[in-house]
Amino acid sequence: MVDNNLTLVLHGKGDLRLEEKPVLEPAYGEVQLQMRQVGICGSDVHFWVEGEIGGYHLDSPVALGHEGSAVVSKLGPGVTTLKVGDRVAVEPATPCRMCAFCKGGRYNLCPLVKGLAMPGCDGHLTRTFVMAADFCHKVPDNVSDGEAAMAEPMAVSVQATNRGGVKMGDSILICGAGPIGLLCMLTCKARGVDSVCITDIDDRRLNFARELGADHAINVRGKTPQGIATEVEDLLGDKPNVTLECSGAPPSLTTAVYATRSGGVVVLVGMGATTKELPTAEASFRELDIRGTFRYANCFQPALKLMSSGQVNVKPLMTHQFRLEEALQAFEIAKKGEGIKILISCDKETQARD
Amino acid sequence: MVDNNLTLVLHGKGDLRLEEKPVLEPAYGEVQLQMRQVGICGSDVHFWVEGEIGGYHLDSPVALGHEGSAVVSKLGPGVTTLKVGDRVAVEPATPCRMCAFCKGGRYNLCPLVKGLAMPGCDGHLTRTFVMAADFCHKVPDNVSDGEAAMAEPMAVSVQATNRGGVKMGDSILICGAGPIGLLCMLTCKARGVDSVCITDIDDRRLNFARELGADHAINVRGKTPQGIATEVEDLLGDKPNVTLECSGAPPSLTTAVYATRSGGVVVLVGMGATTKELPTAEASFRELDIRGTFRYANCFQPALKLMSSGQVNVKPLMTHQFRLEEALQAFEIAKKGEGIKILISCDKETQARD
Amino acid sequence: MVDNNLTLVLHGKGDLRLEEKPVLEPAYGEVQLQMRQVGICGSDVHFWVEGEIGGYHLDSPVALGHEGSAVVSKLGPGVTTLKVGDRVAVEPATPCRMCAFCKGGRYNLCPLVKGLAMPGCDGHLTRTFVMAADFCHKVPDNVSDGEAAMAEPMAVSVQATNRGGVKMGDSILICGAGPIGLLCMLTCKARGVDSVCITDIDDRRLNFARELGADHAINVRGKTPQGIATEVEDLLGDKPNVTLECSGAPPSLTTAVYATRSGGVVVLVGMGATTKELPTAEASFRELDIRGTFRYANCFQPALKLMSSGQVNVKPLMTHQFRLEEALQAFEIAKKGEGIKILISCDKETQARD
Amino acid sequence: MVDNNLTLVLHGKGDLRLEEKPVLEPAYGEVQLQMRQVGICGSDVHFWVEGEIGGYHLDSPVALGHEGSAVVSKLGPGVTTLKVGDRVAVEPATPCRMCAFCKGGRYNLCPLVKGLAMPGCDGHLTRTFVMAADFCHKVPDNVSDGEAAMAEPMAVSVQATNRGGVKMGDSILICGAGPIGLLCMLTCKARGVDSVCITDIDDRRLNFARELGADHAINVRGKTPQGIATEVEDLLGDKPNVTLECSGAPPSLTTAVYATRSGGVVVLVGMGATTKELPTAEASFRELDIRGTFRYANCFQPALKLMSSGQVNVKPLMTHQFRLEEALQAFEIAKKGEGIKILISCDKETQARD
Repeated sequence: MVDNNLTLVLHGKGDLRLEEKPVLEPAYGEVQLQMRQVGICGSDVHFWVEGEIGGYHLDSPVALGHEGSAVVSKLGPGVTTLKVGDRVAVEPATPCRMCAFCKGGRYNLCPLVKGLAMPGCDGHLTRTFVMAADFCHKVPDNVSDGEAAMAEPMAVSVQATNRGGVKMGDSILICGAGPIGLLCMLTCKARGVDSVCITDIDDRRLNFARELGADHAINVRGKTPQGIATEVEDLLGDKPNVTLECSGAPPSLTTAVYATRSGGVVVLVGMGATTKELPTAEASFRELDIRGTFRYANCFQPALKLMSSGQVNVKPLMTHQFRLEEALQAFEIAKKGEGIKILISCDKETQARD
Repeated sequence: MVDNNLTLVLHGKGDLRLEEKPVLEPAYGEVQLQMRQVGICGSDVHFWVEGEIGGYHLDSPVALGHEGSAVVSKLGPGVTTLKVGDRVAVEPATPCRMCAFCKGGRYNLCPLVKGLAMPGCDGHLTRTFVMAADFCHKVPDNVSDGEAAMAEPMAVSVQATNRGGVKMGDSILICGAGPIGLLCMLTCKARGVDSVCITDIDDRRLNFARELGADHAINVRGKTPQGIATEVEDLLGDKPNVTLECSGAPPSLTTAVYATRSGGVVVLVGMGATTKELPTAEASFRELDIRGTFRYANCFQPALKLMSSGQVNVKPLMTHQFRLEEALQAFEIAKKGEGIKILISCDKETQARD
Repeated sequence: MVDNNLTLVLHGKGDLRLEEKPVLEPAYGEVQLQMRQVGICGSDVHFWVEGEIGGYHLDSPVALGHEGSAVVSKLGPGVTTLKVGDRVAVEPATPCRMCAFCKGGRYNLCPLVKGLAMPGCDGHLTRTFVMAADFCHKVPDNVSDGEAAMAEPMAVSVQATNRGGVKMGDSILICGAGPIGLLCMLTCKARGVDSVCITDIDDRRLNFARELGADHAINVRGKTPQGIATEVEDLLGDKPNVTLECSGAPPSLTTAVYATRSGGVVVLVGMGATTKELPTAEASFRELDIRGTFRYANCFQPALKLMSSGQVNVKPLMTHQFRLEEALQAFEIAKKGEGIKILISCDKETQARD
Repeated sequence: MVDNNLTLVLHGKGDLRLEEKPVLEPAYGEVQLQMRQVGICGSDVHFWVEGEIGGYHLDSPVALGHEGSAVVSKLGPGVTTLKVGDRVAVEPATPCRMCAFCKGGRYNLCPLVKGLAMPGCDGHLTRTFVMAADFCHKVPDNVSDGEAAMAEPMAVSVQATNRGGVKMGDSILICGAGPIGLLCMLTCKARGVDSVCITDIDDRRLNFARELGADHAINVRGKTPQGIATEVEDLLGDKPNVTLECSGAPPSLTTAVYATRSGGVVVLVGMGATTKELPTAEASFRELDIRGTFRYANCFQPALKLMSSGQVNVKPLMTHQFRLEEALQAFEIAKKGEGIKILISCDKETQARD
């Protein structure tokens, strides 16, 4: 039970260790997975550096990793939808399946949901892992292991654009050109929007956004929310009807409210400060909808389809590749903010093949 | 053209005068109205006392009044849907009918809308008025002139509950037990909600709310948003899935965010400060929708039906009655915050009959 | 394991028997129930008389009963949401909890759903039963066991009116004044509709509907669909915007299409013939929505709340009461079409107490 | 007033004539247009051949043409949104702007709507025409006059896909590969659907559909609805969640019901017989939505954007070009079913330039 299952474990604030963990057997409804590629998320880095995430504090060691692809190595009892050898993308949170949220189709809001790499629930930056079978999504043949690991951040963008009601003909503002902002842009394009304007305070990111297909990109450093709103309207020819706030920067919410068309939608995708100032009167008079978004529900299948059909190409975002043995170096690179998405190959044989 | 058309005109901050105005003839698509009952709205008092409203400043004198009932006295050319003698409730804002908002069914967001008693557009606290025929809604026989004047604030509550998606079985929190909060409560009840909890800082108002049918009423003076949220959850047995913020008080928005069930809706009905602090992380993690609301679109017919069918009884809210000649006294009473709804009878013959 | 567990078992077409069955122990996530009141549904009678239901044929004996209330007598492992002694209403179908329908909030469409009293899955016209705990809904204290048994047909009416988008101010046509049509009428009223017109070919049923609150009731025997549509429009003052077709009679669908307002909704609630003629051009030109409805998802809680709050009073529909020992007589009465809802008391001690 | 305004006028069944008509001046809110390109619709041919259309009979001569582009030549009083020289696509039906449908955003259902080339309202197969300014939509510079004429059938496909709720990741069945079926396919692709299966009984059309991007194309001649449903499911890997019935062929509706995924949507786009058989039980048990569609509301702007952004390329469908003087020959060609879309150039100078 203790054969070489190398795992990246967070022991405390700033204390990240590679260590051996037992190999687990799949219980009823579960599968055992050989992990392939696992991406590093900004929240992983935050958890490591700060020792807490979203108000959750680390009480005991927890394995990191929640953006992963894998191969099924063993079926637990009762599993009929997967077979050994299937490649899968892991949806990294299992809900209770019984509460009103689960039964109502919004299982991401389940108060009993167990999120991988959250306190009390190990993540899958490891060799071998067990997971509920129905949260392992079969990967189409033409989607690589690395892309399959990107299904998780893609699912975030699918949920964000679902919550925004993004549809054909829309005109979109995206605040923040980080990985999530960029994926949201690509997903908006796949939904048939007319044009996307993206903002950031980093010209390098904005240039990359333009290369990926942004119709307009604005550096907002030093500008006022109203000024940015006017610039966005001028560039798009009208106010955007949906704004996806992906930066988490406090003034961006104010910008979003001023910039969005009357009757339109502002989606809170980025986090940042726990409270922000909201121009309430403006939001009221113009009947804006401001909508929170948390993880995803029913988004992995659309995310995989977008990659399989070629509607979204995530490869340009996959900028760095490490082996599991090099996980600590990978996290150091991530902390420096280099690249867009850093992937860690967990499988000894197939490492770095994507 | 100058026969005795007594009108209440705001000439500047604090300068409200009763004076004679010309009687107008109805143009194409318009009707001439003999005004019956007109309610005083908190915004009228604000406009009078401050000389501005919602960022709009008074440049030239404007007649007040935007909650009115009337009798049709003359038809303009092309009017086929009304006849002389019809009693009507006046929907006090006419949109352009041609922009994307008008064609899309959200004419309240039309940028060219002309609102009665707003700068540049006289209200109907007068004897004789002209109005677009299709914004004059026929009043059922069993609805009095006074009740018909209440169709305007009722329409606000219909719009607010529409925006909140209030439906059968819901559990509702209403912040603020003023006229709009109370009408929202009655409208929620008519929509079949399971229970309503209402808050205020005035025990007299809360007692009145209980008499009108509130299931729970909380005095929130001196309490924290989180504390109130817990109290609401305890009383209702669960968090409310819709919160209607009718107070405009800044801490109420924070309370609303903490109190509302995950995946639920907070509607911004009250105004107050132009910006307020929003607990963004809480709203995000729990996927709340925060929705602005502005006037109403397509709400007068449902409002009149609610009164006609007896589902909503607004009579207990009609606490004061004045004649047009006494309009200045009526506004003084309104400024003191006495009663719930003050009505002014504009028709010499039928004054005070309701 | 064979202690007196009297059960009503269908052995074949027309072959219904009371017999002893073993008492089962609750498995993980299940509870053991002492059944209280169980209603007879028209589909039970159909299954008994025809030996098939909805295309499903009887291969082996199956216990009937799917409209039941009970008391929890034992908890299986892992059950935390109920305790021994809790009174519950049984939602009689358990889905797989893992497919796209289950995860998307429409678990009633799960292809693996197991419906009580369907081939291969015993119903609960018995003394002691086991059931998934999360499909046993706690009954408020002021709702009797008999009313709790009515939660099942009430849930059908909640689902039907959900699918129809029935809301405040609507004008409704209900085709068919049987138990489901009547419950739909009461549920529409609770949702704040303006008025309901109900049709049937039986004056006795129509009179009962009037007593229960129907605004208009029409005997449609011998009338044409267009003629009925005109009569409905005249009575309601406008075409209904939602029609609930509860009769299953083929011409009723045509009536529904002609009668419903442009842009409105026709809900298919009743069954009857497997195919019916649809006036397609009329449905197209007037952009009707014709929506199927199957069982219910997330409807038991609202159904119980409607009864608990007094918004819906189902007691007048509970016309007959039998003991489990008299179940065969009860089914004979049901076959004759007498009364509205026949209940069977399954608990020796508390029989006939409601 | 009688200068050379050549117009194609239908005088009776089979009696189509080119004749001179007076040039009209624009009234308040109207513009005068010099027509550019006008497409022939199947309904035009039907009207000509049968002398009636959709139950409307020809009482007096009417000019045909309702798929047109034009240049603004004169502004009527009050027009501020267009200027002389603007190129526009004509939305060929003007509603009353005052009824509940117009105010509710579904102006296509307005009972007083005046449709071009319908009895009593001339169409624009003419040189000079007058039209309500707000139903003339500015054409982006990179969209040709011919493409702008295609905005009308494109708007049909936008409305059909709106009514179907077609969105990213969907799997779509389209019955019928005529012009509307093909445009629906292109519009579905622009909305980000995963795959489209299209059916027809004509291999030439199916091959053309494949060239335009259909993922799967099935010749359904001689096949049963259930057989086609199975074939569609096999090809798509799952049942389609939206079916757009564009053929009007009676068995296609049955196919659509069997083929569509539970909880999915069938949109009635094609017309054909006035009544069709519907497998009601199947539609009920699987909670299908069957939705009519009529013309379009708020669809011209998205249609023009799709062409301007390059998301939809309609040029391959523009197979024939005639001059207004050759209109009778053009209609003969259309009657033979040759080509996909036949355009008639109405402007003497710019004829055939696209």
